[in-house]
Amino acid sequence: MTDPLPLAALAALADATTLDLPSYDDAAAEAASARQMELTKPPGSLGRLEDLAVFLAGWQGRARPEIGKAQALVFAGNHGVCAQGVNPFPQEVTAQMVANFEHGGAAINQLCALNGAALSVVALNLDRPTEDVTQAPAMTEAETLDAMRRGGAAVDPTADVLILGEMGIGNSTIAAALAHAVFGGAARDWVGRGTGSDTPAIAHKAEVVARAVALHERAKGLQILAALGGREQAAICGAVIAARLARIPVLLDGFICTAAVAPLHAARPALLDHCLIGHASAEPGHRGMTEAMGKRPILDLGMALGEGSGAALALGVLRGALACHNGMATFAEAGVSDG
Amino acid sequence: MTDPLPLAALAALADATTLDLPSYDDAAAEAASARQMELTKPPGSLGRLEDLAVFLAGWQGRARPEIGKAQALVFAGNHGVCAQGVNPFPQEVTAQMVANFEHGGAAINQLCALNGAALSVVALNLDRPTEDVTQAPAMTEAETLDAMRRGGAAVDPTADVLILGEMGIGNSTIAAALAHAVFGGAARDWVGRGTGSDTPAIAHKAEVVARAVALHERAKGLQILAALGGREQAAICGAVIAARLARIPVLLDGFICTAAVAPLHAARPALLDHCLIGHASAEPGHRGMTEAMGKRPILDLGMALGEGSGAALALGVLRGALACHNGMATFAEAGVSDG
Repeated sequence: MTDPLPLAALAALADATTLDLPSYDDAAAEAASARQMELTKPPGSLGRLEDLAVFLAGWQGRARPEIGKAQALVFAGNHGVCAQGVNPFPQEVTAQMVANFEHGGAAINQLCALNGAALSVVALNLDRPTEDVTQAPAMTEAETLDAMRRGGAAVDPTADVLILGEMGIGNSTIAAALAHAVFGGAARDWVGRGTGSDTPAIAHKAEVVARAVALHERAKGLQILAALGGREQAAICGAVIAARLARIPVLLDGFICTAAVAPLHAARPALLDHCLIGHASAEPGHRGMTEAMGKRPILDLGMALGEGSGAALALGVLRGALACHNGMATFAEAGVSDG
Repeated sequence: MTDPLPLAALAALADATTLDLPSYDDAAAEAASARQMELTKPPGSLGRLEDLAVFLAGWQGRARPEIGKAQALVFAGNHGVCAQGVNPFPQEVTAQMVANFEHGGAAINQLCALNGAALSVVALNLDRPTEDVTQAPAMTEAETLDAMRRGGAAVDPTADVLILGEMGIGNSTIAAALAHAVFGGAARDWVGRGTGSDTPAIAHKAEVVARAVALHERAKGLQILAALGGREQAAICGAVIAARLARIPVLLDGFICTAAVAPLHAARPALLDHCLIGHASAEPGHRGMTEAMGKRPILDLGMALGEGSGAALALGVLRGALACHNGMATFAEAGVSDG
């Protein structure tokens, strides 16, 4: 057992008494709901598209929300837990994929281009993996705060929506450890194929996760992030907090992004009020996390890639919701009888 | 009881011995599958997007399918069954909504514009509703064939994908009757809110559906379309057959579109091999139909509007699938280790 990390600064960041969170704009959301009732369709018939339009209205603070500027951030990190043999790909693939993002060859590049999001990739000390979480805390307090600050600093405060994704060989093991530490259950509840593990490898991953979480069992809230997370997870947390403070709605990707923010949920669930989850991952542990957070993913297409790919695809649904919200005629405008 | 309608021409249209259906291009599909294995991602990690890219390759007959031209067709009709008081909206709303489509004010206009589909609306004899299906066959053979031909004639043979939708006050009752006649079960299994029915109204709809299906119980295959369908349902069947003959992949919308093609499924399931279902309707009867047809809807967003709205939104997912399929780098191109 290690002592809980003395992360006073991190604890303060998530403390309701010291961090003043701007609120959802109820008046804008109510005006958006009223508009939905006047559009030429039976009430409720656009289902989730109506809810999404109202959600965006509340966070953007305007009855007619827009997505003029969509920002996508992909954070990349390397993980000492790879020493435990949890991944069939070599660790160099993280840097190779960062280069692929920079040259426009990955799935996230195509999906951001399709749906009109500006993509930036932030590689976080790839030559310096975190510690092996089965042996020691992943990061020091200073390393954790640095990664969080870099994540927050990458957020464009003028964006209308923020898409978050990640890349990091070994990080499905890290994600399972974060989920297990925050939400309990058994290690195997949170472990899946990741990038290509077979059944014996999955059993080994679960054993590694169980050992790591047992070692750091006294960590709470954001201490869990430092003890078991990685730099890309910390950067995602920092970006989520920065977006929350700027009232920018966030589209999280799938399993690994959701697990990355689990320590924020543990510290203070309101830090995630502005977050949507883009896609229900094929990783079996995702459902348990999204249910525990009370968030229903927008898409469910069997994807398990990461990179922000599920969130970038879900941006198309948000655009659809706003196209209807802002572009449809009202019953009065169209001269349609409203029953 | 009425006699089965002597729809020799319709029966022939769906008869395997007289209609020569072009086949799915296995070589193109296999080449697309092979390409998916070479792209810079773990195999299978794009989930349904991979399946959709391969499906489009097989129907378009090229390893690198494209959606240069997406056509959307919305067919509108009126229904004699409205005499049974099955809908809270007046029947004039069908024509009012057609005008709304023509002026660009409906949900389908916004979603087609967003996802790059060219929309056409085909109003089918709105001033001459079909017969009340609780009293007589909905359409004569000549009326049914005429609507099918108009549907088929509206299909652009150069389209890369076809989106189908409908509008018709009362047609959720017609859809439930078609589903009940084709797939059996109890009438109440197929009846839902439609455009705003409450619980007593739903019970009344189920009773109307049960009476209609009992009256036409001897109808089989495409005879069911004439006995219980409407002009927009027949036009959808005609368009689906025309697209099948031209090997154009089809995105059906939700509950009413799926029910519209149920008689084709009854006549010959292969007529629907090129069809995808865009959205899982909030109407409770949709799931039973899609399962019986072995088709899993792409989206599930609680929508129940019709007009082709769920299919037009799903076009964005198809575009995402092809953006990845055609735009991503291979492992070799990107210099990424493939494990």
